[in-house]
Amino acid sequence: MRLRNKPWAKEKIEQHPQYIVPNPEDFKGRWKEAFVKDQPLHIEIGTGKGRFITEMAKAHPDINYMGIEVYDSVIVAALDRLIEADLPNLKLLNVNAEDLEKYFAKNDVARVYLNFSDPWPKVRHEKRRLMYKDFLKKYEDILIDGGEIHFKTDNQGLFEYSLRSFSEYGLLLKFVSLDLHNSDYEGNIMTEYEQKFSEKGNRIYRSEVKYQNEGKDSSL
Amino acid sequence: MRLRNKPWAKEKIEQHPQYIVPNPEDFKGRWKEAFVKDQPLHIEIGTGKGRFITEMAKAHPDINYMGIEVYDSVIVAALDRLIEADLPNLKLLNVNAEDLEKYFAKNDVARVYLNFSDPWPKVRHEKRRLMYKDFLKKYEDILIDGGEIHFKTDNQGLFEYSLRSFSEYGLLLKFVSLDLHNSDYEGNIMTEYEQKFSEKGNRIYRSEVKYQNEGKDSSL
Repeated sequence: MRLRNKPWAKEKIEQHPQYIVPNPEDFKGRWKEAFVKDQPLHIEIGTGKGRFITEMAKAHPDINYMGIEVYDSVIVAALDRLIEADLPNLKLLNVNAEDLEKYFAKNDVARVYLNFSDPWPKVRHEKRRLMYKDFLKKYEDILIDGGEIHFKTDNQGLFEYSLRSFSEYGLLLKFVSLDLHNSDYEGNIMTEYEQKFSEKGNRIYRSEVKYQNEGKDSSL
Repeated sequence: MRLRNKPWAKEKIEQHPQYIVPNPEDFKGRWKEAFVKDQPLHIEIGTGKGRFITEMAKAHPDINYMGIEVYDSVIVAALDRLIEADLPNLKLLNVNAEDLEKYFAKNDVARVYLNFSDPWPKVRHEKRRLMYKDFLKKYEDILIDGGEIHFKTDNQGLFEYSLRSFSEYGLLLKFVSLDLHNSDYEGNIMTEYEQKFSEKGNRIYRSEVKYQNEGKDSSL
């Protein structure tokens, strides 16, 4: 994403603590207290301008949602959406996915969404891809048993990589579509990127994988 | 594949026992004796008219190959190719993949190739797909530890199914290409189908999966 410097962004973020949680470390292990209802929490990592997570929160009032975005200048666009929608089941977090363990404890999260993540195509940047094994470990450490990752992208190389990385990590592939917009999948909510790239004719790839806790604990 | 009745096919097969093994059950557990050299055996299930397996045998003299094809009227085309090529490291088998265990013992085979297998798209025919779990068990029962399946197809639905089925079975996805002919994969040998369908503009999908024997034995 092209980043424009927005010097006013930080101040705007601080002015809306009810939408962008200012002290997320305080909620580690007790995120239910940050929301009106005690219900499962789904997080999107790299939420960008926030269309996906906002529309998901509207469509599924029985789920709590959190959009995580590291860039000030991007999350302010998601903030504008959230101010307008004013949804009780959606919060934003202006932190780095590298630091998830600072803000979330085991069982805090039921599902992780990764949408159109940066492909980091160079081999030497593999560790930065959000499907690299170190990230899969971070997600495992905050998810419930049997928690899921739902991932979509138009980047063929990143999707191939993610299928291999998920398999190597021992995740169960529950769903895969190699052409989402020409499939019978229902209820898809497009991200800003997805709309732009699918209009260019790019295929959209989508997968759902599940952490399998049975049989992984060798101490039993 | 469209099948033409060829009443002379059975007789022709019987006339070439040096190419189409007439009594495969006799070689169960000792296939090395059927070949000139004692080297790993790779089998193709549904070998059709035999271009893939014949060209593979030419390109890799250090591997023994076997093409398995249930239809008399199709395997005779592969037989013609083999008669012309007269390769010491290639045999054909005119049997049904359902019955693999009659002809092969554990460790007889190092790799299974599945190329452009019948997609059986109807849900009620799932059990006939060569990536259905019962077939994955049959392959496991004749493969070496760490044996592999290499699969390609132009059928998107079958490829999606196979990725899920492989994952559910616990196979490791070593390689995946979602557009083989526009990738940097080298050494691809096209099947008759592959040439025809790729000329129509269809994408070719390819995967390699590996049986993981570590950790599967719960008695340890």
